[in-house]
Amino acid sequence: MVKIQPRTAKGMRDFLPDDMLKRQYVFNIVEDVFMLYGFEPLQTPILETTETLMGKYGEEAEGLIYSAQHGRQDESKVAMRYDLTVPLARVVAQYENQLNFPFKRFQISPVFRGENPQRGRFREFFQCDADIVGISGMVADAEIISVMINILKRLGFDDFTVKINNRKLLTGMGQYSGVPDDQLADLYRSVDKYDKIGAAGVQKELVERGIAQESVDRMMALLQSKPGDITVLDNIEDALAGSPIGVEGINELREMAQYLDDLGVPPQNYIFDYTVVRGLGYYTGPIFEAVLNGDSIGSIAGGGRYDDLIGLFRKQSMPTTGFALGIERVITLMDEKNMYPAGIGGTVVDVLVTVFDRETASESAALTQRLREAGIRAELYMTDSKPKLGKQFGYADKKGIPIVAVMGADEIAQDVVRLKRLSDGEEVTVKRGKSAAKVRELLG
Amino acid sequence: MVKIQPRTAKGMRDFLPDDMLKRQYVFNIVEDVFMLYGFEPLQTPILETTETLMGKYGEEAEGLIYSAQHGRQDESKVAMRYDLTVPLARVVAQYENQLNFPFKRFQISPVFRGENPQRGRFREFFQCDADIVGISGMVADAEIISVMINILKRLGFDDFTVKINNRKLLTGMGQYSGVPDDQLADLYRSVDKYDKIGAAGVQKELVERGIAQESVDRMMALLQSKPGDITVLDNIEDALAGSPIGVEGINELREMAQYLDDLGVPPQNYIFDYTVVRGLGYYTGPIFEAVLNGDSIGSIAGGGRYDDLIGLFRKQSMPTTGFALGIERVITLMDEKNMYPAGIGGTVVDVLVTVFDRETASESAALTQRLREAGIRAELYMTDSKPKLGKQFGYADKKGIPIVAVMGADEIAQDVVRLKRLSDGEEVTVKRGKSAAKVRELLG
Repeated sequence: MVKIQPRTAKGMRDFLPDDMLKRQYVFNIVEDVFMLYGFEPLQTPILETTETLMGKYGEEAEGLIYSAQHGRQDESKVAMRYDLTVPLARVVAQYENQLNFPFKRFQISPVFRGENPQRGRFREFFQCDADIVGISGMVADAEIISVMINILKRLGFDDFTVKINNRKLLTGMGQYSGVPDDQLADLYRSVDKYDKIGAAGVQKELVERGIAQESVDRMMALLQSKPGDITVLDNIEDALAGSPIGVEGINELREMAQYLDDLGVPPQNYIFDYTVVRGLGYYTGPIFEAVLNGDSIGSIAGGGRYDDLIGLFRKQSMPTTGFALGIERVITLMDEKNMYPAGIGGTVVDVLVTVFDRETASESAALTQRLREAGIRAELYMTDSKPKLGKQFGYADKKGIPIVAVMGADEIAQDVVRLKRLSDGEEVTVKRGKSAAKVRELLG
Repeated sequence: MVKIQPRTAKGMRDFLPDDMLKRQYVFNIVEDVFMLYGFEPLQTPILETTETLMGKYGEEAEGLIYSAQHGRQDESKVAMRYDLTVPLARVVAQYENQLNFPFKRFQISPVFRGENPQRGRFREFFQCDADIVGISGMVADAEIISVMINILKRLGFDDFTVKINNRKLLTGMGQYSGVPDDQLADLYRSVDKYDKIGAAGVQKELVERGIAQESVDRMMALLQSKPGDITVLDNIEDALAGSPIGVEGINELREMAQYLDDLGVPPQNYIFDYTVVRGLGYYTGPIFEAVLNGDSIGSIAGGGRYDDLIGLFRKQSMPTTGFALGIERVITLMDEKNMYPAGIGGTVVDVLVTVFDRETASESAALTQRLREAGIRAELYMTDSKPKLGKQFGYADKKGIPIVAVMGADEIAQDVVRLKRLSDGEEVTVKRGKSAAKVRELLG
């Protein structure tokens, strides 16, 4: 057969053990917190019918969706999932009689987008979503924000802020300012760029979109209100009094603030900010995103309420709120800031058991197995050459294995093991029957 | 937008929480045992270049491979992985300077095959592989068999046998019997059907393939030797003495048997059986598969040595041995035989905290959060209707939540919580500060 140059396809990544162990550390924390809140795992397939995916994300995005086909004739076209939200909507409609509502699920899975790869952007990447389906009350949104904040804290992020807004407030502000209903979508799109182009930029865009100067001025005055705790809504109450949807938006956020308080969410971690929009078209109520203070990398988590999406697969929609943790971005940050506890990454192996020669190899193998049975991750040194002890220590050192267990003819004769901790050279000789306990002690 | 009938694509599955929790139970055990043996996690992407995958599996299989394309122009064609072994070979060649050898890795990931779906066969399914790259000595093969047996036992399988053979023995037997070298592949293919078509069927096929009757007779006499422990090899030693490769095969298995013994592998769980072939063309040495005794479902795990595969991506190959756990088949069996411990599956939630009305909801939310902070998986009851207590108990019961924590006006006034265990109706009232400890106690 022809030799092939080994390479990863464009935009794809391999995760070697060191990376995988770090990723698993992050995934495990996230899953633990989700389950503490009663969110349950769901897994949908990577391939969906093309019909399920298309018409949901807009034309530009849908050009990035991978279609998939094999040699056999088949009755329907399939494509690789683009996110985890549309599959959730399908699942809720498809299994509504089997599911308990509220349905609180999480999913951490890869999605696929044929984007031009660049720093931090890949064609296969993991998404990490949690959603509550079936509740329109703000207790659900508050719980989403609470779990989001808890996860970030448990991962070691401290200095961050969740910016909260409500699409209904933006609509109310638009109505108050005299923005025509059919230009509200334009309004959202421009405000969404606030962080990038600033107030002046937004103002300019709104005027260019043909919104009357007077409306733009009124809108900008509200938008630029100083963000703060829930009392900042008092300042826009009068302005929005004439907009039923605006009033609804205010009431929702006030109810949410009460629940955030009940759930013990630290007030320093959230703020009400009218410039938050969230790009996606499907949000219908509260929206929120977490940003690191003093960092310009953008949001690391975000979400909101989208009460209409499930209606694409079902006669009547179901109220839904949820969020996505930007798990790839979070991992990149944790790598850069070295936020992993000692011992995460590197190797899984606790102890390397050395081999002297074929005669003593049986004893080394038996010791390895004894340690494994005691729950210690033990590696039996393997080589096709003569097993030189120095090379074995070098192997342990290079791989980051903390302890080496030496079993030579002398040790075997005395029924002992020599254990050496590589970090500080600490060395002890113990009876074989006590080796597991001693290894644990040396691991600390 | 147009309403879409919610459905899963052909051959695809959704795993709702109950299934997912059972799958995760299995995955966790498997991963734990792999890591006890020092195998480390690797993750390769789902999309590989077409060049990496094609020419490895044979024409028929390659008709089942999904190719994938998106709207953008791209420089190379990609396809969805068909197994985890070819990607491993690519990774070893691509990162050889970064990896430590022996490279012991495991991977549990979905693969994709456009097969006709039928009972137990899907187009997306998980494979679970562990391999040792870089060692030709039989200590590696013995360790693979040891970890395979350990995993099956830890999952609750007891009555199974690992059948062990060596491709080199089959070649030696062929040479001894006078089968021409260019018909050895035919020989393997026919013997591979031994379990299905029996000795008479194999004999008939070999004759039909044009192998001389005398050769077939000699071959069949050896093949049908009674399987047993390593001493059964004594019976074919004389016959194979004239075949260097046959002698090598015998010596390898004897060395392996010694290591199996050293590693404490129970003798009742393995047997040497010359009729084992394993379908795949790439095996070059020892091969093995695990079957449930008295069950006709075929093997639930299997593997062997394939020293040439990595050479497809690298100037010189590297010796490699490994196995795959038939994890989907294992899960199906565990479902059928109900092999999960109590408490696996169902729900993740330990306790449901009830809500009386909006006034007491704050206290319910606070209690929920207090329990979560103590590490208890707590769900705050959510509803958009009036929260009736009976309905909340019904919800807990339907979902299988073991404990309900009742917080009404009376309880709040007395700073207590009423905890009820649904399985036996046990009910206790405790101070709120002791609720987490009491919930733990009731969970048992």
